[in-house]
Amino acid sequence: MSSVFLEDLDAETYAEYLSHPGSTVIIPTGATEQHGPHMPLGVDAMLSSDIAAAVAQQIGALVAPVFAYGYKSQPRSGGGNHRVGTTSLSATTLIHLVDDVVSSFLEQGFQRVVVLNGHFENYQFIYEGLDKAVKQATDAGSDARAVLMSYWDFVDEETLDAVFPEGFFGWDIEHGGVLETSLMLLLHPEKVEMDRVIDHSPAELTPYDIFPEDPARTPASGCLSSAQGATAAKGQQLFDAVRGAVAKALISEFGLPDSKRKAD
Amino acid sequence: MSSVFLEDLDAETYAEYLSHPGSTVIIPTGATEQHGPHMPLGVDAMLSSDIAAAVAQQIGALVAPVFAYGYKSQPRSGGGNHRVGTTSLSATTLIHLVDDVVSSFLEQGFQRVVVLNGHFENYQFIYEGLDKAVKQATDAGSDARAVLMSYWDFVDEETLDAVFPEGFFGWDIEHGGVLETSLMLLLHPEKVEMDRVIDHSPAELTPYDIFPEDPARTPASGCLSSAQGATAAKGQQLFDAVRGAVAKALISEFGLPDSKRKAD
Amino acid sequence: MSSVFLEDLDAETYAEYLSHPGSTVIIPTGATEQHGPHMPLGVDAMLSSDIAAAVAQQIGALVAPVFAYGYKSQPRSGGGNHRVGTTSLSATTLIHLVDDVVSSFLEQGFQRVVVLNGHFENYQFIYEGLDKAVKQATDAGSDARAVLMSYWDFVDEETLDAVFPEGFFGWDIEHGGVLETSLMLLLHPEKVEMDRVIDHSPAELTPYDIFPEDPARTPASGCLSSAQGATAAKGQQLFDAVRGAVAKALISEFGLPDSKRKAD
Amino acid sequence: MSSVFLEDLDAETYAEYLSHPGSTVIIPTGATEQHGPHMPLGVDAMLSSDIAAAVAQQIGALVAPVFAYGYKSQPRSGGGNHRVGTTSLSATTLIHLVDDVVSSFLEQGFQRVVVLNGHFENYQFIYEGLDKAVKQATDAGSDARAVLMSYWDFVDEETLDAVFPEGFFGWDIEHGGVLETSLMLLLHPEKVEMDRVIDHSPAELTPYDIFPEDPARTPASGCLSSAQGATAAKGQQLFDAVRGAVAKALISEFGLPDSKRKAD
Amino acid sequence: MSSVFLEDLDAETYAEYLSHPGSTVIIPTGATEQHGPHMPLGVDAMLSSDIAAAVAQQIGALVAPVFAYGYKSQPRSGGGNHRVGTTSLSATTLIHLVDDVVSSFLEQGFQRVVVLNGHFENYQFIYEGLDKAVKQATDAGSDARAVLMSYWDFVDEETLDAVFPEGFFGWDIEHGGVLETSLMLLLHPEKVEMDRVIDHSPAELTPYDIFPEDPARTPASGCLSSAQGATAAKGQQLFDAVRGAVAKALISEFGLPDSKRKAD
Amino acid sequence: MSSVFLEDLDAETYAEYLSHPGSTVIIPTGATEQHGPHMPLGVDAMLSSDIAAAVAQQIGALVAPVFAYGYKSQPRSGGGNHRVGTTSLSATTLIHLVDDVVSSFLEQGFQRVVVLNGHFENYQFIYEGLDKAVKQATDAGSDARAVLMSYWDFVDEETLDAVFPEGFFGWDIEHGGVLETSLMLLLHPEKVEMDRVIDHSPAELTPYDIFPEDPARTPASGCLSSAQGATAAKGQQLFDAVRGAVAKALISEFGLPDSKRKAD
Repeated sequence: MSSVFLEDLDAETYAEYLSHPGSTVIIPTGATEQHGPHMPLGVDAMLSSDIAAAVAQQIGALVAPVFAYGYKSQPRSGGGNHRVGTTSLSATTLIHLVDDVVSSFLEQGFQRVVVLNGHFENYQFIYEGLDKAVKQATDAGSDARAVLMSYWDFVDEETLDAVFPEGFFGWDIEHGGVLETSLMLLLHPEKVEMDRVIDHSPAELTPYDIFPEDPARTPASGCLSSAQGATAAKGQQLFDAVRGAVAKALISEFGLPDSKRKAD
Repeated sequence: MSSVFLEDLDAETYAEYLSHPGSTVIIPTGATEQHGPHMPLGVDAMLSSDIAAAVAQQIGALVAPVFAYGYKSQPRSGGGNHRVGTTSLSATTLIHLVDDVVSSFLEQGFQRVVVLNGHFENYQFIYEGLDKAVKQATDAGSDARAVLMSYWDFVDEETLDAVFPEGFFGWDIEHGGVLETSLMLLLHPEKVEMDRVIDHSPAELTPYDIFPEDPARTPASGCLSSAQGATAAKGQQLFDAVRGAVAKALISEFGLPDSKRKAD
Repeated sequence: MSSVFLEDLDAETYAEYLSHPGSTVIIPTGATEQHGPHMPLGVDAMLSSDIAAAVAQQIGALVAPVFAYGYKSQPRSGGGNHRVGTTSLSATTLIHLVDDVVSSFLEQGFQRVVVLNGHFENYQFIYEGLDKAVKQATDAGSDARAVLMSYWDFVDEETLDAVFPEGFFGWDIEHGGVLETSLMLLLHPEKVEMDRVIDHSPAELTPYDIFPEDPARTPASGCLSSAQGATAAKGQQLFDAVRGAVAKALISEFGLPDSKRKAD
Repeated sequence: MSSVFLEDLDAETYAEYLSHPGSTVIIPTGATEQHGPHMPLGVDAMLSSDIAAAVAQQIGALVAPVFAYGYKSQPRSGGGNHRVGTTSLSATTLIHLVDDVVSSFLEQGFQRVVVLNGHFENYQFIYEGLDKAVKQATDAGSDARAVLMSYWDFVDEETLDAVFPEGFFGWDIEHGGVLETSLMLLLHPEKVEMDRVIDHSPAELTPYDIFPEDPARTPASGCLSSAQGATAAKGQQLFDAVRGAVAKALISEFGLPDSKRKAD
Repeated sequence: MSSVFLEDLDAETYAEYLSHPGSTVIIPTGATEQHGPHMPLGVDAMLSSDIAAAVAQQIGALVAPVFAYGYKSQPRSGGGNHRVGTTSLSATTLIHLVDDVVSSFLEQGFQRVVVLNGHFENYQFIYEGLDKAVKQATDAGSDARAVLMSYWDFVDEETLDAVFPEGFFGWDIEHGGVLETSLMLLLHPEKVEMDRVIDHSPAELTPYDIFPEDPARTPASGCLSSAQGATAAKGQQLFDAVRGAVAKALISEFGLPDSKRKAD
Repeated sequence: MSSVFLEDLDAETYAEYLSHPGSTVIIPTGATEQHGPHMPLGVDAMLSSDIAAAVAQQIGALVAPVFAYGYKSQPRSGGGNHRVGTTSLSATTLIHLVDDVVSSFLEQGFQRVVVLNGHFENYQFIYEGLDKAVKQATDAGSDARAVLMSYWDFVDEETLDAVFPEGFFGWDIEHGGVLETSLMLLLHPEKVEMDRVIDHSPAELTPYDIFPEDPARTPASGCLSSAQGATAAKGQQLFDAVRGAVAKALISEFGLPDSKRKAD
């Protein structure tokens, strides 16, 4: 059986892959959270998984089962954890989940681990879990290396200008906005209903968080900016930019052998 | 958008579902672990997810994203955690994962939660997480109820006789055997390679566990019994038996309103 | 001072024992839980302790203080944690208790550790604690080995037929039944009141768990099967079978030196 | 069945006891640690258990299974955790053990919980566990009350003068000394070998702790003061003083109904 | 005694303050980490503490003892945790520290809690701790409210233009740069040595993290941008902007009674 | 910059200090808790910090940022955690805080770590954190050493007689009494108001703890003994005695090189 998704491989094929130098696993992480009335709850997991697969294809890596549940949605980047449809993990659970899974991959012999994040709020907790797992492996003599990245951080200025011709207001308010919707229109068009997009100005958020959350502070749509301008074409631009830049970064970081790279 | 998988629903459709009495979520749980040379690593997650979907269809429930990582594989039920391809969680991580996700669903308003387990070793840790989540909800005044089940416990005697004509040796050694392979042949035939099945007698296991694990104790195939007799037809028998019995049990337990039940 | 119970040894005698190759400690684990109106709350701890002592005598091991508190009683194997008289630990407490105590014994120099379990629900949590303790020791260069077993898993078919002439329905429903009562009649007859045994059919349990527990699902006696047929003679048969089989397994696993073995 | 030890009671007798106002459980806590060449490892558990039983008899309470494992032995009060024969728990395990067991007793309906400590180093960790358990119960509306005590804190000045005619140097260095040995000579004379007592001056300890421990700092005997002057008669004096004072304190604290008190 | 620092108040004065409506505590959080050769390790704690005091003065709040230790320094915002002088907490410790301290203040009767953060990497972990503490209080019926903010998020565009005339490259690389150095020149000039500032271009950082850290990736100075342009006058501009904006936000959020506000 | 407080050092000066043999860090630990109407809440942190600085000056050590929050105040040594002004940590938070900070210092290269405690209730929890941190370092090959001390344990008999001419009743009831008040009169006279001292007999405390706390058991003043006899002169005597004895002990323990010692 041949697939970039390791869950589709049999144990012998998997073991064979692991025996090659530069064996690399990409773990996509997302969330189960509301993304407005026009997109499904699984957006973050779907996108990080799709991008991971494209990158893995290009650099000869395997993709691990996606982390479908993420850290609590925060009002300033996801609309808030109080919103129905948002099913979240506490910080310590996410930290230990990353630590366990990464440690398990390192013990099996992976030399390189990539966590490709698709949910804004996850980053710091994945950082801690990854730091613990790699430190433990390193202390035990391993020369394993890991990388943590959020895919949107690889969108270059040129693409940004093309996708957001009227100006870009920051990744934090892209929740349910043009970035995610364009990518979904490209990759899962049957799961997007553009006629249900609610058009509104970008959310004007306070530069601080309040507890308990105040539902009235974020747009009723659940999105922090409007997806009105989203198109599959923009999705293609974003996807190509991200896939290319992520693959380039990983090849450079890991010094991957040429024999592993396939034609783009 | 219409789907039994909640990750495919938009937030409004999801909220609408939740507003009905008897709202029920089924959480399938599996593992990422070797299943011999003839089946993929994701078998447990795939089967629990498929069965959950079929049951959800029948009783009007939603299916949550599958838990793709499970508790450590144990030699006496899964071949052992030392086998390449087995990527596991520690007990406390799994307990907290269940607690967090179930608590999150209960807070959103689900009245019934089902955990449908597909990995033998998970059971007791899910039990603890579920017990904690429901106790906390109950202490806070909720009348929420939950059910924990492993799907194979719903195979009746008649089906057992039909599927295992030469005798049934227990679910613990069914890892990678006739049950799982038959179901995979039915549901994911493209992921099974019957010509790679290694035929051997059922593993003769000690009635105790040893630490550290001894790779020589379990069959080199990674399976605890041979899948030689597996067929898609047996898969259909098993699937029908399980789906029917699980649905019946849940309808009875939860007193689900008739309007939710669809024709079988 | 001479005893198989290490709590009765002075520090010098204990140190002397430890200096011999093959030094082995057996940790009996039980629970404090209701066992019906005819037996005391401490049954599980008493039986695992007694069996541990008999085996230790035979193979030259020491017995550690029993774990008198165990994991929550579950309805399908113990009647349920809601029953008065049942005083339980959470999963994480039990895991850490096992990890701490086993690690402590390994640090003192024991080469072999046995956990002899007497409470059905404990098994998986002891497994995790033992796995962690041995892994840590092994990672630090130790060649220590450990074994985990529940004593009833050593009752052979022949004994089973003799003790349960009308058929055996599974160890899970033996809570407060013929097995435990017969052993208590043999070992602690003054703590059994056979005239208080409530005779009823074996509990018919659902093949799943529900939360919160439903007291009406299990027999009012607190026992899952009737102890009516229990006798001290059956207790002797069971005791001999278990002691012999456990001792044989440990001698074989640990390659214990002949000089340590005493006449049976 | 009648006993002050709840492990010896059947579930119905236990439930009957619990239904009375003022139901009280005493949990004795000890340790498994070296007590020199003249006494067994289980001294702390034996003494707290015996005293708990005597007090329970007097005030109509029940005694729970003893905590046989305690916090790490510290050089300034127990000789140190590095000594062979000392099998210890970490702080968090002990805290959670106390929390779980006390919470479990409170849920069953006990109105009063006493932890009677017999191992110097345990105190603060039991304090935390007890504080958490009672706070949780109180927050949920319970009017349960608990008491934490170390038995030696109930020896009065007069007894002290009688038992230590040459002066008393503090409870911290009584590890393996006259107090414990006298009580053991009274209660378990067959487990004491006075001819193995090593006579030495009281340990001169630094007023601080060092890490890692330095085995050379404490007496080679493992005892912090000599047990040379111990006698069963002194044991009787100590036992009577402690039993009387503890019982008096509990009766006063709990306002126990007269009908529960038995003649001394 | 009169002070905005609660550690300087006696218990009666403190209790009197708490009895007023709108009682507010500000908890400054920082870190102990290297800030290049020209500034001390305690910069983050000093600055958050000073700003907290100025704001407290203005709105009639109290300032709690600063959290002097913070989360691990990350290469992309602080130079990295491997640098000498950086003394850090793990994620779970910081989360529990925040939870405990905030819960303790809420239990004493504070109605408003502000965490004023001065160390970039702390934010998400404080978020989790604060979320837990407030959720627990709210579940128990409290109407307490809390706010989490990093002080630099209150620098307005105008001030930014004035302070960074050659362009502003983001708060993440302001570690040891113009912002912190200017504020230190204003508030603790004796602790800054401008002649030791190392002038270099802003660090060019990868848009991802690598594990283990690579010391060669960040400037040898330990700073992520040069402090060359820092002046006390800029410090005054920044300080005034931040104090004013933070105070205004808190007055608005908390609806503080006029009687509490003092002249600016 | 030159200071004994490491938070005031720049990274290069700090690194230079660390490169010398015998590099030593002293971590002062205190609490935020009520100390009666005549002294501020920060007494414990202030005193441990001041003494640490004086000792550091003498032996050439550095002082780390003080732990301003401590374990729960207990009625028998601090008046109780229910008193307003007392802001406490749970046991596990304090343990992990000590573990993290000490581990961090050991990783940076400190060869000696001293925890100088100023809050009675902290001791055992610091012990656990320190034990864990040093054990982990030692297991990894480090020869680091650590010391844990409470400053009052260094007051000699002669000083005791001078300071408490009418008799000394034990350090536990010195909370808010003559010891702390005299030291504060010496070191922070502007923070003491002697005319607000409430004169009362030493608290008569039970030899056990009760849960929940009973506010009526301890003096309304919040102090366990009267500070009436406190003077700055006594403070000087105490301070000199403690500083001298602590410095002497550390020089002896650590074999500090003469070149590090400055004139007293």
